[in-house]
Amino acid sequence: MKYANREEFEKVDNFGVGAPNDAYAQYFQGNSFLKPLTEFGKCPVFLANVTFEPRCRNNWHIHHAKSGGGQLLICTAGEGWYQEEGKEAVSLTPGTVITIPAEVKHWHGAKADSWFSHIAVEVPGEECKNEWCEPVSDEDYNKLG
Amino acid sequence: MKYANREEFEKVDNFGVGAPNDAYAQYFQGNSFLKPLTEFGKCPVFLANVTFEPRCRNNWHIHHAKSGGGQLLICTAGEGWYQEEGKEAVSLTPGTVITIPAEVKHWHGAKADSWFSHIAVEVPGEECKNEWCEPVSDEDYNKLG
Repeated sequence: MKYANREEFEKVDNFGVGAPNDAYAQYFQGNSFLKPLTEFGKCPVFLANVTFEPRCRNNWHIHHAKSGGGQLLICTAGEGWYQEEGKEAVSLTPGTVITIPAEVKHWHGAKADSWFSHIAVEVPGEECKNEWCEPVSDEDYNKLG
Repeated sequence: MKYANREEFEKVDNFGVGAPNDAYAQYFQGNSFLKPLTEFGKCPVFLANVTFEPRCRNNWHIHHAKSGGGQLLICTAGEGWYQEEGKEAVSLTPGTVITIPAEVKHWHGAKADSWFSHIAVEVPGEECKNEWCEPVSDEDYNKLG
């Protein structure tokens, strides 16, 4: 279900909208928010709820790893998109789980007319490093939907 | 919110009720269901949605590991309980995330009057092995709530 209104969306986003995602803002178009769900360093798997305002999406990026690595997306509220390079975008709704393998170029974010949240699960691996690439152009983004 | 009725519960359990959890039935009181959310062996982190009928709970158990290990619970629908040995039981509602460290004896399950689902995240580690102990007695369980 789509939520254009932030207050209505927050009522169904059980994991909570966190603080402005300042550390990664340079790699996002629009405003995103980050709420850690595990204590950093206390657990080998880091979880955070990531919230995107309508139209917000991250740049194309790649999770590099020598072994393991990548990310899982657990979609919890609103509606969004996930796209791997060379493939059609996949619609994300609550209940969708996406396995993003290491070394695959991709992006994710909200739909144009809805707020969206997913829990991001950082998959442990060796020598994990993110490579941030170009933004998803308005031209490409506007074709979706 | 509590759901005594399975059909009503299934409408809000976005990740889906899976198949009867036969492999682990011997370690559970009551009926539970398991729906894998990642392909086994394709990702170093295994996720599954676990659903408990009202009163269903697993036995006291311990996730042993030489390093890493343990489990994360992401509560998605209905209401349940999580308890570590020697501590008060914690109420679980959608949005609750529990970090279960390795080597800590604990149990989890539904409340007496509600279906309950959580996503279980298996935290990778070395020499991971579960030790299943005694059931949670009706006497102890009935004190909760």
